[in-house]
Amino acid sequence: MSFNLSEKNDTIIALATPQGVGAIAVIRLSGPEAISLCNSVFKGKNLEKQESHTIHFGTIRDGEKIIDEVLVSLFIAPKSFTKENVVEISTHGSSYIINQVIKLFIRKGARPAKPGEFTQRAFLNGQFDLAQAEAVADLIHSDSEASHQAALNQMRGGFSGEIQQLRNQLIHFASMIELELDFVEEDVEFASRDDLRVLIEKLLRVIEQLIASFDLGNVIKNGVPTVIAGKPNAGKSTLLNALLNEEKAIVSEIAGTTRDFIEDEINIGGVIFRFIDTAGLRETTDTIEAIGVSRTQEKMKTASLILYLFDLTDTDMVEINRDVNKLENLGVPFLKVGNKIDKANPQLINDLKEKHPDSLFISAGQKENLDDLRNRILELVNLDKFRTGNTIVTNIRHYDSLVKTRQSLLDVLNGLDIQITNDFLAMDIRRSLHYLGEITGEITTDDLLANIFSKFCIGK
Amino acid sequence: MSFNLSEKNDTIIALATPQGVGAIAVIRLSGPEAISLCNSVFKGKNLEKQESHTIHFGTIRDGEKIIDEVLVSLFIAPKSFTKENVVEISTHGSSYIINQVIKLFIRKGARPAKPGEFTQRAFLNGQFDLAQAEAVADLIHSDSEASHQAALNQMRGGFSGEIQQLRNQLIHFASMIELELDFVEEDVEFASRDDLRVLIEKLLRVIEQLIASFDLGNVIKNGVPTVIAGKPNAGKSTLLNALLNEEKAIVSEIAGTTRDFIEDEINIGGVIFRFIDTAGLRETTDTIEAIGVSRTQEKMKTASLILYLFDLTDTDMVEINRDVNKLENLGVPFLKVGNKIDKANPQLINDLKEKHPDSLFISAGQKENLDDLRNRILELVNLDKFRTGNTIVTNIRHYDSLVKTRQSLLDVLNGLDIQITNDFLAMDIRRSLHYLGEITGEITTDDLLANIFSKFCIGK
Repeated sequence: MSFNLSEKNDTIIALATPQGVGAIAVIRLSGPEAISLCNSVFKGKNLEKQESHTIHFGTIRDGEKIIDEVLVSLFIAPKSFTKENVVEISTHGSSYIINQVIKLFIRKGARPAKPGEFTQRAFLNGQFDLAQAEAVADLIHSDSEASHQAALNQMRGGFSGEIQQLRNQLIHFASMIELELDFVEEDVEFASRDDLRVLIEKLLRVIEQLIASFDLGNVIKNGVPTVIAGKPNAGKSTLLNALLNEEKAIVSEIAGTTRDFIEDEINIGGVIFRFIDTAGLRETTDTIEAIGVSRTQEKMKTASLILYLFDLTDTDMVEINRDVNKLENLGVPFLKVGNKIDKANPQLINDLKEKHPDSLFISAGQKENLDDLRNRILELVNLDKFRTGNTIVTNIRHYDSLVKTRQSLLDVLNGLDIQITNDFLAMDIRRSLHYLGEITGEITTDDLLANIFSKFCIGK
Repeated sequence: MSFNLSEKNDTIIALATPQGVGAIAVIRLSGPEAISLCNSVFKGKNLEKQESHTIHFGTIRDGEKIIDEVLVSLFIAPKSFTKENVVEISTHGSSYIINQVIKLFIRKGARPAKPGEFTQRAFLNGQFDLAQAEAVADLIHSDSEASHQAALNQMRGGFSGEIQQLRNQLIHFASMIELELDFVEEDVEFASRDDLRVLIEKLLRVIEQLIASFDLGNVIKNGVPTVIAGKPNAGKSTLLNALLNEEKAIVSEIAGTTRDFIEDEINIGGVIFRFIDTAGLRETTDTIEAIGVSRTQEKMKTASLILYLFDLTDTDMVEINRDVNKLENLGVPFLKVGNKIDKANPQLINDLKEKHPDSLFISAGQKENLDDLRNRILELVNLDKFRTGNTIVTNIRHYDSLVKTRQSLLDVLNGLDIQITNDFLAMDIRRSLHYLGEITGEITTDDLLANIFSKFCIGK
């Protein structure tokens, strides 16, 4: 790993709070000169003589001209986010003031921070590992309980801890086997091949689990892909609107905070459900009859959940049985939901309760039984795992490294089977270590870092 | 002045930073329970045992569930903005986290703050007076050097100090004259009527100055209303675009900070010039010939500045002389600007230099001499005053109070002239004191306060 020393040792500055009108804005500086630079334009106490984690009132001045009255928070290295000297300047939330303050510091020698550069420095200075650094960005962008919990767990080192444990066990064997290489003529065996096999098999089980968790992780991060299937007048868009409106009502309007609602993304019990191609769904072309058509069928197969919605006033058992048959063949979990219960024929309800006891009866228009529907949806996708604190892989980069690790471990197992020489065995183990190390950043390259941190926002 | 005690003594909460994606968000609490409430959901040090102006790392928890890792800044009453206990919680900048934290505190007993409620509490608790409180909002919304300096000066008490001085001098006389009322049968004169007259005349001069400064203050706050007048092809929109684009280029793009450009508002030397009805100007209907039309004439009369733009390749002296004559009759400062100097007839330039030596020659298309144009514009509006630190009235409420004060003082003078009785004289002086007191908030009503602070943003 290499980087430009001057880049590492300079002092960077950026706005840490969002653009726009607010009461206050926070401008963040990090680097060896952060405190002395700030002191040179600050009128108040001598900042260079103050303790870490203290706050000081004063004015920021450009020569004689006062730019603003501010609060300055001091974090003295290494007791800061980046482990460098950090100053946070809390100004009045005017874009004019923010610009003037940042320009002043740049004139004094600070450099505008690149996206994610504060977090990158925190990583390079050992504040946390790469997986934790990546979780910082995920945390900021999390918009549901599930994605928030997954990111927070990862940021707090849950995932890194598991990877680290696996790595440490492998490192032990790797060094034993490499030691044997030094004594190759004496034919000693420091590392028991049976123990190694047991370990590799154990590691593989854990890694398989982590790889498998990515499906769930992806769903948590990007939403559960869901399709509402049904005839044109079954009430698909009425149902979508009812769910969305109830969600908006539940998210009580706390003064000063809002939440962006994305059409066709609905938060149910802390999980985002993403309704696929609902633009199409809202038209009348995407009927259950069209399941036979391959394009529609493909789309439904990519869903993690299908809500099969039928009109209780306009569907007979023959039709329902036929549709259910088709859906069973798709192999995707689905819910049978009869709509318009307020106007339904009681005989049909009775027949359905007998033949399809797992059916659910709602009225999207009257908002009846929508709570039941939400509970059944949550049961079906079985996302309880995310609440149990199990580690869930949400990052495709980690997923890729895990898949490569698995292959290398399989190579080790294979090597043990065919009794390859120690040097080849050591190489395969080292390769596993390499891929595991990429996740936490013990193995890394400038390109990899640049790629990861460029996706961050500026000021983080 | 009265207010609901329970409202005054509860603990309020709001997001203090803007909505949107940023690295961090700051949530602010103020009130007697601010620190104990925060301590009840904070895992880290015991916040109730820490010093004021210190920062503490820890987690905010809802029961067992961690919402975020945060930094908590403590400000212990009265050493805070509101003079109450204040806690600022710096969280990761996710709207999910912000919502969860605010909801948690509301469940624990905090109340969502109303717009401007933090500043209102600061005012009620004597942190500053009303004119200063109003300047806080102006400061946040200031978008030019001039408006920023005016707001900052007002926030730091410049204006309040002047008003206070005037009031104190009047109070002295008022009490003397009221004392005389107690001794009315003894015919003593504690307050010299001549001295009073001298004082009132002095006060009137100061107040006249402040009233007169409002024109400038209004211009600083809202921009200098400017009209570019000229024939269809004189190059009006080319000039506007050239000025706007150079401004955009000058405001260097500091990473992470931007500035909203409003079409037809151009910052020249720290002052905003607002181009009136440029939508119309950009069409070809608003020609100099139309000056005779009353609507256009009215519009030009409301301007503080007219740029008379003529095409040097397509205008003769007769036409220019006629236009200049019309403009001189309007009584609005104007600049004679010949455009397309790069293609101009040298003879016309020579004639113009002789007959209209104050003419300016530019090329809007080639961006020639635009700096000269900007300098001449600034000279013409003569905004040097805002740089000299003179107090400038920018608030229409203050302007109204000053106009009423002037009338009351004139009544006092008149009373002295016609030798009205002491009780009437005292009443007129008290009325002047009342209006002056409204500016700084020594005299106030709930309605007035509600009206002022409702215009603030939430979290301030």
